[in-house]
Amino acid sequence: MGEAVGKQCVFCEIAEGERSAHVVLDTAEVMAFLDMRPLFKGHTLLIPRTHYETLTDLPVDSLGTFFGHAQRLAGAMESVLDAAGSFVAMNNRVSQSVPHLHVHVVPRNRKDGLRGFFWPRQKYDSEAEAAAYAARLSKALTEPAS
Amino acid sequence: MGEAVGKQCVFCEIAEGERSAHVVLDTAEVMAFLDMRPLFKGHTLLIPRTHYETLTDLPVDSLGTFFGHAQRLAGAMESVLDAAGSFVAMNNRVSQSVPHLHVHVVPRNRKDGLRGFFWPRQKYDSEAEAAAYAARLSKALTEPAS
Repeated sequence: MGEAVGKQCVFCEIAEGERSAHVVLDTAEVMAFLDMRPLFKGHTLLIPRTHYETLTDLPVDSLGTFFGHAQRLAGAMESVLDAAGSFVAMNNRVSQSVPHLHVHVVPRNRKDGLRGFFWPRQKYDSEAEAAAYAARLSKALTEPAS
Repeated sequence: MGEAVGKQCVFCEIAEGERSAHVVLDTAEVMAFLDMRPLFKGHTLLIPRTHYETLTDLPVDSLGTFFGHAQRLAGAMESVLDAAGSFVAMNNRVSQSVPHLHVHVVPRNRKDGLRGFFWPRQKYDSEAEAAAYAARLSKALTEPAS
């Protein structure tokens, strides 16, 4: 959960040039490279060069630059790859294959066969239960900072 | 695909207080509220108050603030809801149910049954094909700005 990793991280290896990758973007702060098992061709992973495990670990003052690159990558899926849209996602801890923050930027098209991640949907037992969930989250978000 | 919407946008209605929602966060710039058909209870949608259709439409100078809220929401999934992790995602155009940018922030746990969005995976026909994809994306990203 912190900066240090015992065994070497494969994304750090890519960032340090010790492991090959099909690089899309290489700046002082981030790297982007192709996922070699793409959901669709052009599927790109954006990482901070520094090893942060999840989104919550990324320094707040890096967010604008980092997501500026995600934004431009999402645009490139449409402008360069002629995709109809894009899917931009992060798995934090659960389903996170490499414990180094990475944003998936994936070209999407209608009827491209990708589905499933938005189901099955659940329901709240009652409006009161939903209200209680909202209140708990809201409390946590408005108390420490805001 | 710009700012204007002909018929009223349901997320704008929520932002303007004209439609009820279980609100998690309400600031000058963003709102967050429960998805009423959650993947898992606590599934929250973060939106800019201003109507922007997709991630690429969000002004660059809003990114830091906007994703700061996404980051804190992701943290709250763990700290408040005791989730093992989180899933943070945007659908841009394809699979986007409401054409007003919204970030899904979803609590995740091991063996929670959510899968499917990371398969089926594809393969590049060759290293050369992968290199060509990377080069096309890279060119688009490094030419206009950088």
